[in-house]
Amino acid sequence: MAAEQDRGTVARYIPGLASISPDQFGMAVVGADGSLATGGDAKTSFSIQSISKVFALTMALGKVGDQLWSRVGREPSGNAFNSIVQLEAEHGIPRNPFINAGALVVADVNLSGHMPRESIGELLRFVRYLADDDSIAIDESVARGEAETGYRNIALANYMRAFGNIRHAVELVTGCYFHQCAIAMDCVQLARAGRFLMLDGRQPDGGQVVSARRARRINALMLTCGHYDASGDFAFRVGMPGKSGVGGGILAVVPGKASIAVWSPGLNESGNSQLGTLALERLAEATGWSVFSART
Amino acid sequence: MAAEQDRGTVARYIPGLASISPDQFGMAVVGADGSLATGGDAKTSFSIQSISKVFALTMALGKVGDQLWSRVGREPSGNAFNSIVQLEAEHGIPRNPFINAGALVVADVNLSGHMPRESIGELLRFVRYLADDDSIAIDESVARGEAETGYRNIALANYMRAFGNIRHAVELVTGCYFHQCAIAMDCVQLARAGRFLMLDGRQPDGGQVVSARRARRINALMLTCGHYDASGDFAFRVGMPGKSGVGGGILAVVPGKASIAVWSPGLNESGNSQLGTLALERLAEATGWSVFSART
Amino acid sequence: MAAEQDRGTVARYIPGLASISPDQFGMAVVGADGSLATGGDAKTSFSIQSISKVFALTMALGKVGDQLWSRVGREPSGNAFNSIVQLEAEHGIPRNPFINAGALVVADVNLSGHMPRESIGELLRFVRYLADDDSIAIDESVARGEAETGYRNIALANYMRAFGNIRHAVELVTGCYFHQCAIAMDCVQLARAGRFLMLDGRQPDGGQVVSARRARRINALMLTCGHYDASGDFAFRVGMPGKSGVGGGILAVVPGKASIAVWSPGLNESGNSQLGTLALERLAEATGWSVFSART
Amino acid sequence: MAAEQDRGTVARYIPGLASISPDQFGMAVVGADGSLATGGDAKTSFSIQSISKVFALTMALGKVGDQLWSRVGREPSGNAFNSIVQLEAEHGIPRNPFINAGALVVADVNLSGHMPRESIGELLRFVRYLADDDSIAIDESVARGEAETGYRNIALANYMRAFGNIRHAVELVTGCYFHQCAIAMDCVQLARAGRFLMLDGRQPDGGQVVSARRARRINALMLTCGHYDASGDFAFRVGMPGKSGVGGGILAVVPGKASIAVWSPGLNESGNSQLGTLALERLAEATGWSVFSART
Repeated sequence: MAAEQDRGTVARYIPGLASISPDQFGMAVVGADGSLATGGDAKTSFSIQSISKVFALTMALGKVGDQLWSRVGREPSGNAFNSIVQLEAEHGIPRNPFINAGALVVADVNLSGHMPRESIGELLRFVRYLADDDSIAIDESVARGEAETGYRNIALANYMRAFGNIRHAVELVTGCYFHQCAIAMDCVQLARAGRFLMLDGRQPDGGQVVSARRARRINALMLTCGHYDASGDFAFRVGMPGKSGVGGGILAVVPGKASIAVWSPGLNESGNSQLGTLALERLAEATGWSVFSART
Repeated sequence: MAAEQDRGTVARYIPGLASISPDQFGMAVVGADGSLATGGDAKTSFSIQSISKVFALTMALGKVGDQLWSRVGREPSGNAFNSIVQLEAEHGIPRNPFINAGALVVADVNLSGHMPRESIGELLRFVRYLADDDSIAIDESVARGEAETGYRNIALANYMRAFGNIRHAVELVTGCYFHQCAIAMDCVQLARAGRFLMLDGRQPDGGQVVSARRARRINALMLTCGHYDASGDFAFRVGMPGKSGVGGGILAVVPGKASIAVWSPGLNESGNSQLGTLALERLAEATGWSVFSART
Repeated sequence: MAAEQDRGTVARYIPGLASISPDQFGMAVVGADGSLATGGDAKTSFSIQSISKVFALTMALGKVGDQLWSRVGREPSGNAFNSIVQLEAEHGIPRNPFINAGALVVADVNLSGHMPRESIGELLRFVRYLADDDSIAIDESVARGEAETGYRNIALANYMRAFGNIRHAVELVTGCYFHQCAIAMDCVQLARAGRFLMLDGRQPDGGQVVSARRARRINALMLTCGHYDASGDFAFRVGMPGKSGVGGGILAVVPGKASIAVWSPGLNESGNSQLGTLALERLAEATGWSVFSART
Repeated sequence: MAAEQDRGTVARYIPGLASISPDQFGMAVVGADGSLATGGDAKTSFSIQSISKVFALTMALGKVGDQLWSRVGREPSGNAFNSIVQLEAEHGIPRNPFINAGALVVADVNLSGHMPRESIGELLRFVRYLADDDSIAIDESVARGEAETGYRNIALANYMRAFGNIRHAVELVTGCYFHQCAIAMDCVQLARAGRFLMLDGRQPDGGQVVSARRARRINALMLTCGHYDASGDFAFRVGMPGKSGVGGGILAVVPGKASIAVWSPGLNESGNSQLGTLALERLAEATGWSVFSART
């Protein structure tokens, strides 16, 4: 069906995501001046999935700082999001914090000194603070459903535990990870949660979330590693730091200009939102908001 | 020796580069307004090596346009610059045009309908035009010396020829490639040659070298793939599209702001100029010229 | 220390094995005529570890026959015993039943319709029958200790479960696997348990354990895959079908001539008994018992 | 067509082999007692291709002895015959002498102190001596045709030259290699050439070609590595040391019993003669000539 090709295919391997209609599209753009523009299903909640890795990374850097980089790399992996191959050659050190293995290490860091429930609660409070919206919640049915596709992630965590790079019990770490992936947000909430990344680390009210340097660095990681093995293509076509999730959402950042969230559940071959990517590509073309453009 | 650690190690595997003193450093910054700032050995010529891949890619895109992408990918490789592993799994299609295998395909494209001498001449004229400096030349002794380290590149080209992705005789393609790597430029010339990438594809005199879209895309490739398996780290630390060469040079672009060339022959573990990278990192910090900063 | 080099190093990663003195060596040879020759510590029990994979494979073939080969391959892996790399490229199908991943699939097959305790009991009874010795038992402290090194195996099992090639709950499968590895036997018992492989599938009393064809095939697998990534070297030096374990034991079969067990806990770089391999090499040299010799 | 499935597919990538009718089958069995049994097209010449690696290895071991093993491994590769992946990880040391990379190193050894013409002549004389037949010759048209498929082999040789593991000019080494592959023999000649491997290294007239130990070791390498990534399967099904070639020939050795050559040009998926393998499997079944059988 042509429409399916145009819209991509909904991720079927996570129960609770498979039943979502691909016939949806939403977008929200928060400007550096605080303006908000929305379109389509911008107020429909979806599972942010891997976009949560951005917030979890930010929280982990707040806890342990650059020590994190002794346990996770900063290079694009050249492999799929759930690949285990690179871990063997590189002794349990994931290539970057945005592939699943890296996100599990980040979850392990965030768990330090906490019970899982506390750790998840802390991350949820952080996201609510960033978005300034206390209604953001975890979709427990999605979190439970992750278990059915969770074997690879459990394998990754055990594998890294064998190298000593996961330090808590695997079931605690994966439990946190499955819950963070199941955070539900709409485009407006997500675009608001990304504001600190366009504002050199500050919230619009002036609160410093992270230093300007750290904000730049998180943006850099999003650009080089935010779309798994299609990160290069996203940079080539869109030219914005971005992070996608298999729920069909993408958070994109234009430093100094805008924080953008798009959502459309149909995915392309690389597991990124098909319409979402296209919408960002056209937006970048129309506005010159690519970080690689002289016009920004 | 502490100094050696500070300055890195000169590439020893190419005769003619091994004898160069690491005790040199130069920098040139051309602003979008045409201003020029220089420091250190900015007028000393060096072998641009892999930086030539940027110019060769630009020329090949001018010849065949987006058809090039059926023969070369656009993703970071996750492997060293001269790795052959990925080629086998991916049937002779290199991951991107900035690893050696990809640059050999680009050289094959540029050779179409030409004798090697003509193809090299065309590239040299293009670089002279970009830099507005007809004194730029090829160091023939370096070109000859490449042969001594050329076995891997010859292997890569033969390997891709087995898949039909090199179409001219291997010795012609590698001949062109070895000569393009041996182009000698100083920092001022190199920074000038990169101006079109900061100016949305135009020369300062208004001449359109490539479209704005293509300029953005070349910048994107430089950011995600310009430093081999240290591209992520360079983006993280410096935050500018850049391309390094084992001669110790780096061309870095700040769209709308500056075209920068640094040179220091001592290399770090990843084969990129140690002092050059450090200088760019400090410059980005001081100026906010990272593409990931709100201040640009 | 020279002695350590001569004797190799005791496996330290499994608690309960690490404390065993490398200063031990035993050997038992059961002839096709029923003769028994012993030497050294032939009556000292040791943990058979991966040698159990031979008995578990034989039992699984008895349950599902050649259907097993749709879930496990028959090729040497070229990788270490606990590698996970090949599994990703080959969609969860292990290369052969003697690497850990393959043995986990075999354990999954043997578990069908059983509780773990029953499955382990069935295997133990089978080994007792083969050796004609009801005193053979499992060392529960070793089985418990496997858990401390079990992360990689748990990772392997979860990884294959993601591909549907492990069908029972991972903890049940690994539980069985850890217990089978912890079977304790001495050289005499082990050599006796291997008799059916030298006698075209029959016990000395004429009982048919497997068909002659199946016995040949198990021998073939031992020769090509029995020593992980040192299988080629063992075939080259010793020339007998054999299976080693990290407890320091090796079961070697000379079809029509002898079933041989050696044990010495010091391991070489590849994780096979150093003195055990040397003893078998000399025995093969002295007797012409290599399967590659015209003299057999 | 059913017949094509039964007979496999003729190798099409080497000109001169592609035109051969798959409708041919020959077999020759030389017994340890000197008896000769033949069947079908046993007197039709074919290109021995990779079977030549056995004779070239034997010659190289005669020249440099066990020093060879510092430059070539003895382990099954787990990869296809022309894979380059393993070479990168293992620094230019091929896994075994029966994959193409290993055979190129062997050719490099055999070239020492010779002109290519002399080296090829020496190998041809050696094969004629083994078979006691001076009519054996090289098919020059096949040798020339190898060049059209030669890019991967040229790539392998250049790649190993980069690591210093090819010491002569690549074109000389590949020239020798292409010629050795183009030796033409019929089944009777080939079975006779393999007699020393069934007779512990001696010719039937008592002449010692290699020591008994070396004969055993070559047999071991044939068993573990003789059929590329289907070596395990051949051992499993046939149980004889053997070496196949893409010309459709297989040399199989039953130590102390027989030297067997089969030929049928249709290949299975792994590039080994389909009918040839089947014929050997049935012969092994009928005679008990598997080295893994108690009956030998």
